[in-house]
Amino acid sequence: MADGPTITTIAERAGVSIASVSRVLNGLPTRQETVRKVMAAADELGYVRNAVARSLKSRRTHQVAFAMADVGNPAYLAMLREIQPVLKAAGYRLVLHSTDAVVADEIDVLHSLGERYVDGLIMSPLRVTEQHLEMLAAARAPVVIIGSVPEGTRADNVRADSRTGVRLAIDHLYALGRRRIGMINGPLDTVPGAARGAAYREALADLGLPYDEDLVRIGDFYRAEGGRAVAELLDRVPDVDALMCANDLIALGALDVLRAAGKRVPADVAVVGMDDTDLAAASWPALTSVSLGSAERGKAAAELLLDRLQGGDREPRVVTVPPRLVVRASTAGTAGAGTVHDDAGRTERKEGGA
Amino acid sequence: MADGPTITTIAERAGVSIASVSRVLNGLPTRQETVRKVMAAADELGYVRNAVARSLKSRRTHQVAFAMADVGNPAYLAMLREIQPVLKAAGYRLVLHSTDAVVADEIDVLHSLGERYVDGLIMSPLRVTEQHLEMLAAARAPVVIIGSVPEGTRADNVRADSRTGVRLAIDHLYALGRRRIGMINGPLDTVPGAARGAAYREALADLGLPYDEDLVRIGDFYRAEGGRAVAELLDRVPDVDALMCANDLIALGALDVLRAAGKRVPADVAVVGMDDTDLAAASWPALTSVSLGSAERGKAAAELLLDRLQGGDREPRVVTVPPRLVVRASTAGTAGAGTVHDDAGRTERKEGGA
Repeated sequence: MADGPTITTIAERAGVSIASVSRVLNGLPTRQETVRKVMAAADELGYVRNAVARSLKSRRTHQVAFAMADVGNPAYLAMLREIQPVLKAAGYRLVLHSTDAVVADEIDVLHSLGERYVDGLIMSPLRVTEQHLEMLAAARAPVVIIGSVPEGTRADNVRADSRTGVRLAIDHLYALGRRRIGMINGPLDTVPGAARGAAYREALADLGLPYDEDLVRIGDFYRAEGGRAVAELLDRVPDVDALMCANDLIALGALDVLRAAGKRVPADVAVVGMDDTDLAAASWPALTSVSLGSAERGKAAAELLLDRLQGGDREPRVVTVPPRLVVRASTAGTAGAGTVHDDAGRTERKEGGA
Repeated sequence: MADGPTITTIAERAGVSIASVSRVLNGLPTRQETVRKVMAAADELGYVRNAVARSLKSRRTHQVAFAMADVGNPAYLAMLREIQPVLKAAGYRLVLHSTDAVVADEIDVLHSLGERYVDGLIMSPLRVTEQHLEMLAAARAPVVIIGSVPEGTRADNVRADSRTGVRLAIDHLYALGRRRIGMINGPLDTVPGAARGAAYREALADLGLPYDEDLVRIGDFYRAEGGRAVAELLDRVPDVDALMCANDLIALGALDVLRAAGKRVPADVAVVGMDDTDLAAASWPALTSVSLGSAERGKAAAELLLDRLQGGDREPRVVTVPPRLVVRASTAGTAGAGTVHDDAGRTERKEGGA
């Protein structure tokens, strides 16, 4: 035992085969009794089995990181729910970062890839800066970006298509006969705010509807402020007949204010949210919402990363997940009392993708 | 360069000081230009800076794991939201496991502590078995359990108090004059189902109300089945005047069915949910719900673990987080149209703790 305990000495002490010791130490399925004997022998001999030492040999950590902007945001949580099981099934542990969408934090995460504590990274930045691109070019491990990146970026990329999403919603409202369709947006200096605002304007133009500034109000992405923006819009355009809201929280604020104003939803005003969070089905009337496919994007990102980890070098790939409109009572249902929604409370009617 | 690149050879190649190289390689704040030079030189020289090699020296991984039962469950996500920033602030990375509440998966996670890939673990098992206790006794790293554990368990422990939580709700309904208070529960062979059912029975007894089997219906913990259980209860006891629901999803199902039956909430039937998820404030009428302090439990667990990692040996500690009743329109509000709820839609009135 000059060199300290080995699997041979542990096998002797435990009274089991060397193969059994190897199985236990590598975490392979083994009878509980054998596990106990081997662990006890290893303890007695002072054996330190160490993932760290093992990964020094293989240069693999069997860990993958997911850097999400905000651990409290349902859209990212929907991604996480899909990423976690895909990685687990492939034998990877998940390291979770929350960057609060602070660029310096995101750069730190990319920088830390040099420490080799993970084999790869999935990242969801709100904005991709020059600094991101530099760090991506120098990254020491494969990175998949969820979000839009400039042409030629050296990273696999999974995109949503909020423009088509807004378009699906406006077309739906138009098909229902609505012609005074308002937009309640978040700040225009955010990526989602700018994209959704532009998409609204385009969709109206394509339908031959005039763009009316009084029909557009800007708040933030939360319920109370969204409600206040709706109240303002109602003051200016009392006969507004539909509201496109830039996310579900804003749409909940819209329902609050419309209820207070004695407006029926959808008879007087139809309401559409965006992101299709769990809140959409919980509200009453249940909220029609544009799904940007958070779950699908998470799954696609995990699969791209695994493919890269297993397959090695190839050209970067771009996957675009098409949006879909989940139609519920706030636009098309029977809004009065009397309807028991089935299952998760959804009266789902899916309309085509991109 | 017989021994490969070192920080000295990197400093020479990059044309910067050794101190600068050290700062960059240790991830300390450094001018972006310097970072770029050092990374380029390190790359050219084939230097592999390795968290793995570093942690071999210090025997610290600076990682902590959180094993949650279900990555999709809002109660665990509320814990995660608090655990993540506490650990991040202390310089720890978070490794996330989702065990689906499968005992074998939880045992695997405890077993894998022997691999030293984390410095500590926070775990939230639905049930603590003999096997858990054995593995906890042998654990190679500190463990904090969120949930109830037997007396004498060698682990720090953070507990909720659902019994007091149910009690707060029943007392609230009683104070509102309700006397035919129904209970819609999940399966009685789950820990939460059993605890909540027993607490309901006790609370009635203490108030001198009779226990009536027709007032108790068992479904699962989801909306549709919860709704069906409510419909059954309404058939048997048409004049039920309050419903205690074992979680918020069941309560949403109750609102669906009561609306369909033409019952006013809360005028005819007051409804209380449990867990105080985001869904409670999103529903209409907004749902009174018992908070079991998921966020607070997550925070307490992270702090206990950090204390243990920094302070070393001490006796195991038990922290019990008191429940609170968050009163909204489904029991005490003005249920008619006309109320704009403020902020997150909450008309919050907090009632005492344990």
